[in-house]
Amino acid sequence: MDDIKNKRIAILAPVAWRTPPRAYGAWETVASNITEGLVARGWKNVTLFATKESETKAKLVGWVEKGYEEDKSQIPLVSTCLHISKVMERADDFDLIHNNFDYLPLTYLPLIKTPMLTTIHGFSDPDILRVYHDHKDTYYVSISDSDRDPGLPYMATVYNGIDLSNLTFSDKPGNKLVHYGRIHNDKGTHLSIEVAKKCGMDLIIAGLIQDQAYFDNLIKPHLNQSSIQYIGPVNPVARDALLKEAYAVIHLNLIPERFGLVMAESMAAGVPVIAMDLGSCREVIADKQTGYLVNSVDDAVKAVKIIDKIDRKKCRQQVEENFTIDKMVSGYEKVYEEIFRR
Amino acid sequence: MDDIKNKRIAILAPVAWRTPPRAYGAWETVASNITEGLVARGWKNVTLFATKESETKAKLVGWVEKGYEEDKSQIPLVSTCLHISKVMERADDFDLIHNNFDYLPLTYLPLIKTPMLTTIHGFSDPDILRVYHDHKDTYYVSISDSDRDPGLPYMATVYNGIDLSNLTFSDKPGNKLVHYGRIHNDKGTHLSIEVAKKCGMDLIIAGLIQDQAYFDNLIKPHLNQSSIQYIGPVNPVARDALLKEAYAVIHLNLIPERFGLVMAESMAAGVPVIAMDLGSCREVIADKQTGYLVNSVDDAVKAVKIIDKIDRKKCRQQVEENFTIDKMVSGYEKVYEEIFRR
Repeated sequence: MDDIKNKRIAILAPVAWRTPPRAYGAWETVASNITEGLVARGWKNVTLFATKESETKAKLVGWVEKGYEEDKSQIPLVSTCLHISKVMERADDFDLIHNNFDYLPLTYLPLIKTPMLTTIHGFSDPDILRVYHDHKDTYYVSISDSDRDPGLPYMATVYNGIDLSNLTFSDKPGNKLVHYGRIHNDKGTHLSIEVAKKCGMDLIIAGLIQDQAYFDNLIKPHLNQSSIQYIGPVNPVARDALLKEAYAVIHLNLIPERFGLVMAESMAAGVPVIAMDLGSCREVIADKQTGYLVNSVDDAVKAVKIIDKIDRKKCRQQVEENFTIDKMVSGYEKVYEEIFRR
Repeated sequence: MDDIKNKRIAILAPVAWRTPPRAYGAWETVASNITEGLVARGWKNVTLFATKESETKAKLVGWVEKGYEEDKSQIPLVSTCLHISKVMERADDFDLIHNNFDYLPLTYLPLIKTPMLTTIHGFSDPDILRVYHDHKDTYYVSISDSDRDPGLPYMATVYNGIDLSNLTFSDKPGNKLVHYGRIHNDKGTHLSIEVAKKCGMDLIIAGLIQDQAYFDNLIKPHLNQSSIQYIGPVNPVARDALLKEAYAVIHLNLIPERFGLVMAESMAAGVPVIAMDLGSCREVIADKQTGYLVNSVDDAVKAVKIIDKIDRKKCRQQVEENFTIDKMVSGYEKVYEEIFRR
């Protein structure tokens, strides 16, 4: 195992945001956690391919100055293809490329000799399966058992690991409901407002507005200075403060969750999560132990009323046992090892 | 030279539309003309990479069934990257890849051994220059002297060639003004309406609506059943009928033209063109001989009034001497030959 830690690993992060991101940027967060986790566990030759202003204890190779979401003068595909091609041009310098940047890198695969592991962070559209199905002789990891395409050969599910240093456990519940993450219909932000109103509780909404029309039409009209607030995106420090105020996190996603970093983060702070029973939610939440899986707003309202039955220590424990960076990286180590053995 | 015609050439067409396109699809049209032109001139090993439903006398290799503009279930980038990667995977089977599909193919270039010639059909955004500037040790052709980036090493300008078989010369002027091509602010469709009104002449507008809001706001309000008509996109047969009705073609482009197929087509039918003096217009039109280069609507109105001074035979001649498929292909043959000599 020590021998394997000398292998030359390239971690390919997206270039939408800095790695790690300042606020939003789920895939960059995971790519950062994998990179830093490998270094922490003694891997000696890890190279992170990310934006030039990224930060890492591994070797950083960047081609694009800033993330294209942070510098709108860039055409995303221009930055994306340049970034990816720089890894591919140097493929021979590595024993393994670990791709965290979606499907485009797969199309360079037949031209390089180095094996590539792709973590599929989500299928943004069914059509992207055409690329995956065209590349079945490579290595895939899913981020939950539920987020799998039946036509693909997966090596394993490796759950995302989160950085607990920015998530302070508190045994004392706050007195507000909290909804955070991307503000989008898919995440059911508007349903959290319904729940709060029906429960007669305050609600804090935080996160990046991903669909401005959705926000303007379904969220903004309900906002006020007191009972229903929107506080914008939160960085890890602000998130920690936010979760201290949380009685429960409401996460009524309307499409299957792929993993659900928000749920793991909330539980890490000791906050129980009420989530729609769709996709990976039942893999992340231990139903009735660290939160409740529900199927409707009314179920969620009932769940809020019995949330004090949840042991907040159990929430933290669920994360410590399953969703730490160390747990994730040891999962990837097993996968890497198997690839090197083949 | 006969020896060179045994070389294995891959022509990479875009997959937005069928090659050749049914109606609109400028780059696919050129890619088709190059392919068929090479075959006509005796090249024996030409392979066209295009949509599967494309038509060619060369060998056809397709991966994508239909163009992504004709089948909106496709994510354009998915079809694009799969299509490009299929050429790259087979690069060793060819002596030259002739890329007519923009900048993305360049990023695969360091991974293949086969030389690639890229015809730059246009810079859709200044940001795409980042990819070109990152790949200066390859071969470029411009489609006009004016559409060149000063930082790139070009081998030659090769003007687009058009298929004259669908363009019937008529010495007899029609009695209407005609504007056709993409309906977009860049093409100055709204200015052709101003010209027609000021001249008191009828106007027929044809072409694909590329910007619906532009059409709805600036074009639609002026349409009626008689003096100002919009007839939709035209295929080559309908275009031929359209040009028969033309007294002159009005082409008051607001951004520099890259080449201007519309101008060459019009002149081929014997129709003089009044064009804005921007970009390649002065390379395609012989000013005062095959049309007029202008700088304003008022100039264009004046030009309409003296358009009968233009010899329509001269218009046709301008195209026959400079913008035929044969002329274009012989231009590319010289470029290919130089690449093989290096």
